[in-house]
Amino acid sequence: MAPLPHVVILGAGFGGMGVVQKLRGAPVRVTIIDRHDYQTFQPLLYQLATDELSPADVAHPVRETLHRHANATFHQAVVHSIDLASRRVVVDGMEPLDYDYLVLALGAVVSFHGVPGAAEHALPLYSLPDALKLREHVLKIFEEVDKQPALVDQGALNFCIVGGGATGVELAGALAEMLHVDLAADYPQMPVDQARIILCEHSPHVLGPFKENLRAYAEQALVDRGVHVRTSTDVKEIRAGAVTLANGEVLKTHTLIWAAGLQGNPLAGSLGIPLVAGGRIAVGSDLQVAGHPGVFAIGDIALATDAGTGKPLPGLGAVALQAGKHVGETISRLAEGKPAEPFKYVDKGTMATIGRGAAVVELPFGKTLTGTVAWLAWLGVHLSLLSGTQEKTNVFLEWGWNLLTRKRGKRIILDDSSTDSAS
Amino acid sequence: MAPLPHVVILGAGFGGMGVVQKLRGAPVRVTIIDRHDYQTFQPLLYQLATDELSPADVAHPVRETLHRHANATFHQAVVHSIDLASRRVVVDGMEPLDYDYLVLALGAVVSFHGVPGAAEHALPLYSLPDALKLREHVLKIFEEVDKQPALVDQGALNFCIVGGGATGVELAGALAEMLHVDLAADYPQMPVDQARIILCEHSPHVLGPFKENLRAYAEQALVDRGVHVRTSTDVKEIRAGAVTLANGEVLKTHTLIWAAGLQGNPLAGSLGIPLVAGGRIAVGSDLQVAGHPGVFAIGDIALATDAGTGKPLPGLGAVALQAGKHVGETISRLAEGKPAEPFKYVDKGTMATIGRGAAVVELPFGKTLTGTVAWLAWLGVHLSLLSGTQEKTNVFLEWGWNLLTRKRGKRIILDDSSTDSAS
Repeated sequence: MAPLPHVVILGAGFGGMGVVQKLRGAPVRVTIIDRHDYQTFQPLLYQLATDELSPADVAHPVRETLHRHANATFHQAVVHSIDLASRRVVVDGMEPLDYDYLVLALGAVVSFHGVPGAAEHALPLYSLPDALKLREHVLKIFEEVDKQPALVDQGALNFCIVGGGATGVELAGALAEMLHVDLAADYPQMPVDQARIILCEHSPHVLGPFKENLRAYAEQALVDRGVHVRTSTDVKEIRAGAVTLANGEVLKTHTLIWAAGLQGNPLAGSLGIPLVAGGRIAVGSDLQVAGHPGVFAIGDIALATDAGTGKPLPGLGAVALQAGKHVGETISRLAEGKPAEPFKYVDKGTMATIGRGAAVVELPFGKTLTGTVAWLAWLGVHLSLLSGTQEKTNVFLEWGWNLLTRKRGKRIILDDSSTDSAS
Repeated sequence: MAPLPHVVILGAGFGGMGVVQKLRGAPVRVTIIDRHDYQTFQPLLYQLATDELSPADVAHPVRETLHRHANATFHQAVVHSIDLASRRVVVDGMEPLDYDYLVLALGAVVSFHGVPGAAEHALPLYSLPDALKLREHVLKIFEEVDKQPALVDQGALNFCIVGGGATGVELAGALAEMLHVDLAADYPQMPVDQARIILCEHSPHVLGPFKENLRAYAEQALVDRGVHVRTSTDVKEIRAGAVTLANGEVLKTHTLIWAAGLQGNPLAGSLGIPLVAGGRIAVGSDLQVAGHPGVFAIGDIALATDAGTGKPLPGLGAVALQAGKHVGETISRLAEGKPAEPFKYVDKGTMATIGRGAAVVELPFGKTLTGTVAWLAWLGVHLSLLSGTQEKTNVFLEWGWNLLTRKRGKRIILDDSSTDSAS
């Protein structure tokens, strides 16, 4: 009997774990590699950054998912290189992996668009460690200002967010509530009313991909929460303690949060295949990489096109998950000698929340929701999407607790080292 | 009107927060300094280290406690020096503090008793960062062995604990359950049955301060869980990858956990007052430092004597908390011109748990409990002692969840850096 085909999945995000899910019980051997031992629920990272949820609430251990997958093995490791010609992956600290099928689901890295000083001083928000670092940074800023009130004049209580997409908008709203409710109560001696949140967006509107009425609602909801929304605003340079805008204006800040774009994981550039905008891998309608049958790319490392409209699919967890499941099914088909089929993304709507009782929802076929109804829909959908029963229970309880007490998390600073005055 | 007397409390542990509690509403200004912004519930740190609880479960934010204390201010800062003659405390990063009353409640640091290599290679378990580091270390060891099975022969799955007091015993029991239940399920390819937990204790018995029948029960409960209990065993030297015992025997291990003793915070040595065994400050019956009226020392930095028996009081959270409350009351009395009164510790019993359904309880007046009854008592007492309603609720739910599912925490590795093969 021939050995079972070996499926190597690089990345245990929505995409990679979608593949695993569909290959359960299939006559293949599956190996999954990720640099972390957990799957991150990225849509809620901003709630980790603003201390509403804990790390364990927004992460699910990969090994626990695999208890139900006898044909799958996981290793926490960093991918060193990929050789498509010899069908081999080199992984740090272990034997190389030879594959029959390869799924590239390594996600993205933050793109600073060449803005000087951004890589050194900006705090990104894409991974769980990013969110944890941002949370600790904000809490440490408050402890520093508490001891040295003169830091306020140096802009220590100015929080600048670059990028008015869903991440930037959700973070700005949550940060406003954290500052003006929780931290104001924790630091009664501090002029927390002098804290400013500035949201800089390159385009004329926040939440660009949403409909006009939702964009307007979101912008007003941010303004109502005291956020300074600066649209059509570019960042020219970031230094320690200040950011310079394209119009020459200088904003003092010790906290420059970067939510202004991603690019495909740099490993994509090492494959010897042509990349498209944002360093992503263009894939065919069946999500395979042209010229490399049996090699798939999904999620933020890939650029897939909608089979119907011909437009690029957005970089959403829902797209990655559906693509992953499609790839899992495709591999099963290929292993049985059947042909691959094209991927069709089923849009179930997009949503963003600005704060307690304020959210926007864009449903398929043009319907929109705002306000408390949208917010409740947002809560329900995100609860149901969490990976494990324990995450669902814990997040439900955390949110319920926060709603009842109007308080968020614990504000405990885990990191023992001192504040690095970033940006 | 004269300004209110200034009470400076150094340390926000059981002792320091006990003082704060009793000074609520008193006609004094209170300033609390701690290097962390949270109070640690030390009796449950071993459950953080073994992934049964989360950091937020065993820590309560000091600032949240102070919401109800209008006369108290907290600063997260490191104490630089204390000048008893000029009644001044110098704190890093802020203005010096002049006091009328001073409470030294800075706790202890780990004592390695001069064992060569211990400071470099041993993992202590006294603070929340210690517990978090130990948890990450154990999880990383498993990920490393998963990738490089040959590490088992180098002792990577040997976990050596030095010190058979309550900390060492509770940790050994919890680690055994974590390895043989949770990690065995997570790493089906790994020979987890080859993992060994070795508990080294200097004296002829574990749990020295407990009664004979409880010591015997605890030792047997550990053996039943696969722990190798080595009593009358001293550690001579610790190197990277191995520990040498006093009898010359060499144990290979990548994890040497140090639970073998504490000494008073080194700041005690800088005060210019004589110290007693373990670098602690001897205090009078009213917990004041001899020759320095208005200066108190409580908790692990101090050595107090039982007013009844004349014996030294043990280093327990319960002693520190009661001493803190007594000092709070004493300061109120002194501020009103009344004399100080002696401190009387009310022993409500001591307990230690070895694992699911196995604990020992020693009640006052000689009564003892073991087994499931003792374990339930242990659960109930520790739940009731937790600081906040949210901690109580969360820990109750975590324990309930773990009992129902026979699973513990999330096993997610937060630290992004690679394993440092300690010891």
